[in-house]
Amino acid sequence: MAFEKLREKCLNKLRKDLKDSVNDDNLIINAVNAIDDLEKTGNMLVTRLREWYALYNPEFEKWMTNQEKFSDLILRKDKKTLLEEIHAKYSIGADLSREDLEPIMILAEQARDNYAIINDMKKYMEFKMRKHCPNLLEVVGVMLSGKLLAKAGSLKRLSQYPASTIQVLGAEKALFRHIRTGARPPRHGMLVQHPLVAQAKQKDHGKRARTLADKIAIAVKVDYFKGEFIGKKLKKALEDKFEVKY
Amino acid sequence: MAFEKLREKCLNKLRKDLKDSVNDDNLIINAVNAIDDLEKTGNMLVTRLREWYALYNPEFEKWMTNQEKFSDLILRKDKKTLLEEIHAKYSIGADLSREDLEPIMILAEQARDNYAIINDMKKYMEFKMRKHCPNLLEVVGVMLSGKLLAKAGSLKRLSQYPASTIQVLGAEKALFRHIRTGARPPRHGMLVQHPLVAQAKQKDHGKRARTLADKIAIAVKVDYFKGEFIGKKLKKALEDKFEVKY
Repeated sequence: MAFEKLREKCLNKLRKDLKDSVNDDNLIINAVNAIDDLEKTGNMLVTRLREWYALYNPEFEKWMTNQEKFSDLILRKDKKTLLEEIHAKYSIGADLSREDLEPIMILAEQARDNYAIINDMKKYMEFKMRKHCPNLLEVVGVMLSGKLLAKAGSLKRLSQYPASTIQVLGAEKALFRHIRTGARPPRHGMLVQHPLVAQAKQKDHGKRARTLADKIAIAVKVDYFKGEFIGKKLKKALEDKFEVKY
Repeated sequence: MAFEKLREKCLNKLRKDLKDSVNDDNLIINAVNAIDDLEKTGNMLVTRLREWYALYNPEFEKWMTNQEKFSDLILRKDKKTLLEEIHAKYSIGADLSREDLEPIMILAEQARDNYAIINDMKKYMEFKMRKHCPNLLEVVGVMLSGKLLAKAGSLKRLSQYPASTIQVLGAEKALFRHIRTGARPPRHGMLVQHPLVAQAKQKDHGKRARTLADKIAIAVKVDYFKGEFIGKKLKKALEDKFEVKY
């Protein structure tokens, strides 16, 4: 009987531990992954939508290359207005009936919603990160913060990485090729998505990624140990060093 | 001047021809392809949704294997109700706040809409096919009709195929392997999706696909030349021959 009681107690403890094991890291990483998937589905839907809509209005389909705006505009404006806006005198597209246009517009709505949801997810991530890792968020922005967290698995693990690891996160293939064959080491992994690196000249990529990784390493350590907010200072140091605003 | 006029006339003729080249085949094939894509995106979204929702209610996530019902049910019922319905006494999922649940529910709505749209598309296809190829529709149903049309490119081309070609449509790889190496020929291509073939014993697959292909070949020829409606008769002949209802 005492054994039974002990067993029940242990099980309850386990259940509670499992419950508590869900934390902000899990939630943020799921949101990042969802954005990844939504970007893929959005692209798929708009590509399909374009092919279909091109039967009706090929001139506008060709003219508007932005995927997100495409689905929004064909929902808000009719064919005549769109043709006028792009100064097309005539259309070689078919005059579709209302019944034939309807499924196209339904698909367009789904695509538009898809992009709207990506924005909702980003807002949610920012809301979570303001508390969870405000310094990281300030230095690299919402999407890259999320990707770094997802790659590391948690803020704790990310805070334990040295700057040199952070610099090449996401370039594992090139890193191991370097170790194995002595090929040139990677200069950056996913940090290339940061404007400071992306907008630099090719030859400065390595240097900028290294400096950026230094600041990220500091930011996540402060975030993990719940230190004060030094994000603005870190960001300013980067901007001053390279004389750019981002 | 006369030459100018002639040129303008020719161009106008061309524009009109292009306009008229869009026909029911194009519209139906676009709808089939859209359904194909929507099935992929739906699966992607629900897979992501499941992983996220499992932080909150892993018991229900595990229990409900149907992708379409999953997103619908978690939107309509709360955690407590769902747990009761599957007779789970407790949940090891975390108690998420309203803010943390919101993005999950937004994703669930997008997934649910995705499946609703597939149904809209099917209805649209059926509406088009009632006029365009009623006999084919009656014999093989809306989805398989669409796939056969998409594979052939148009009703005209499908109507020119002999039954033996229709039988192996979608099994091109196996067919050419047969021609090249003398391996066994395929017994069916996409016709295996038809209940008459799918629900038969393995050894009857070839025979059933062959008979079905015969009837399809008749149906599409009648459809293309706008003959009378013989779909019910063809279907009944198939059902009688194999003594099944589909």
